[in-house]
Amino acid sequence: MYQLVLIRHGESTWNKENRFTGWVDVDLTDTGIAQAREGGKLLKEAGFTFDVAYTSVLKRAIRTLWHVQEEMDLLWIPVEHEWRLNERHYGALSGLNKAETAAKFGDEQVLVWRRSYDTPPPALAADDERTSYADPRYAGLDREQIPLTECLKDTVARVLPLWNEKIAPDILAGKRIVIAAHGNSIRALVKYLDNISDSEIVGLNIPNGTPLVYELDAMLKPIRHYYLGDAAAVEASLAAVANQGKAK
Amino acid sequence: MYQLVLIRHGESTWNKENRFTGWVDVDLTDTGIAQAREGGKLLKEAGFTFDVAYTSVLKRAIRTLWHVQEEMDLLWIPVEHEWRLNERHYGALSGLNKAETAAKFGDEQVLVWRRSYDTPPPALAADDERTSYADPRYAGLDREQIPLTECLKDTVARVLPLWNEKIAPDILAGKRIVIAAHGNSIRALVKYLDNISDSEIVGLNIPNGTPLVYELDAMLKPIRHYYLGDAAAVEASLAAVANQGKAK
Repeated sequence: MYQLVLIRHGESTWNKENRFTGWVDVDLTDTGIAQAREGGKLLKEAGFTFDVAYTSVLKRAIRTLWHVQEEMDLLWIPVEHEWRLNERHYGALSGLNKAETAAKFGDEQVLVWRRSYDTPPPALAADDERTSYADPRYAGLDREQIPLTECLKDTVARVLPLWNEKIAPDILAGKRIVIAAHGNSIRALVKYLDNISDSEIVGLNIPNGTPLVYELDAMLKPIRHYYLGDAAAVEASLAAVANQGKAK
Repeated sequence: MYQLVLIRHGESTWNKENRFTGWVDVDLTDTGIAQAREGGKLLKEAGFTFDVAYTSVLKRAIRTLWHVQEEMDLLWIPVEHEWRLNERHYGALSGLNKAETAAKFGDEQVLVWRRSYDTPPPALAADDERTSYADPRYAGLDREQIPLTECLKDTVARVLPLWNEKIAPDILAGKRIVIAAHGNSIRALVKYLDNISDSEIVGLNIPNGTPLVYELDAMLKPIRHYYLGDAAAVEASLAAVANQGKAK
């Protein structure tokens, strides 16, 4: 039996401000730092350890991983920074206040943009200053690999090659892995692992900073999965995430 | 022309307590954290950036690197954790208070053990609880690769393969590299780069948290090197390091 732990970053400054973030590199809030530390403590208390960590190239995920490493005294493990684990790219919504967007377009359209499997928000113009073309962290990519918007289907399409080429082989080699990533890159993995339909994945939320443990069989099919920590706290965290993007 | 930046970790808890550390995984003091941050600030102010970072598997170096990454907004760059960049292994002196050791054996013997090129301190017994045999971070090594003591010559002998196999090729590929490491693993690199004699390297000290910049020619021979920051501060930091291990 194999094991895999997924952890979504703690609350970010733009989660708190209710703004669409995507590939914008915002940091954690103090609450987000506390959530990440708590996630690390839960993992340590439950006896977990890791041989390799994967994370995105965005600091809210990397810093969440750092706090987990701190709590577990695992600063020394190899860490793979992978752009394919980035949050879904929110296109022209990037940086907009979610409540304002909802007030303007309606809760339903915002929910479609946030949660529809295959309807992306309007794309950024190629000359929009919010594109990632000039960002050195993507210098090794072809221009067509750098999104101007994404639906969840697009995110799945870029996460799965990483799973197939690196993560799954690492797990099969016996490495115990933690992935510190984002709501939608984790959702992409969960959709694949649990074979969740395009329509059902839309309603699935991932709480901030709460370790999600998968136990996998020899073919890497899930035997079961569970969140670490107090059930009521996990529920409260999920409710908070579900509420994001609603007009206030 | 190529560039390489070396930075020794900030003050550790055992630097402060004047104890021989080596492969023992002690953390930074508040002063050490401030030194690391200052090093990162100096690099940022001077316009440096990096494509790859190398560090040891010891948290005082990794955490120093983290603070440098924070100050430079470079959390996302690839980081290689390499045991070959560890501090020199101090054998049976590991954990001993330097002043007490000096009072017992004399300043001169301690200085020989600390600074002789080819005289190691007494080795740890193979069943000493201070050996690194059971430490998971060295699980991939052959037992004979895990030292029980080292002289600087031994440290040079394990650092240079890393230079030749990974760091030098990375530099020649155009990657801008920072190495966050330890007094003696940095001394090993400096000895090699500047072709310093076995006797002269003994007197060369590396200050904590101060970026040491090398400019290298096409053959990776140094054109010049310099410390970033205020010259008086660098001198004071060097004097503090030189004073370590003297009886109080």
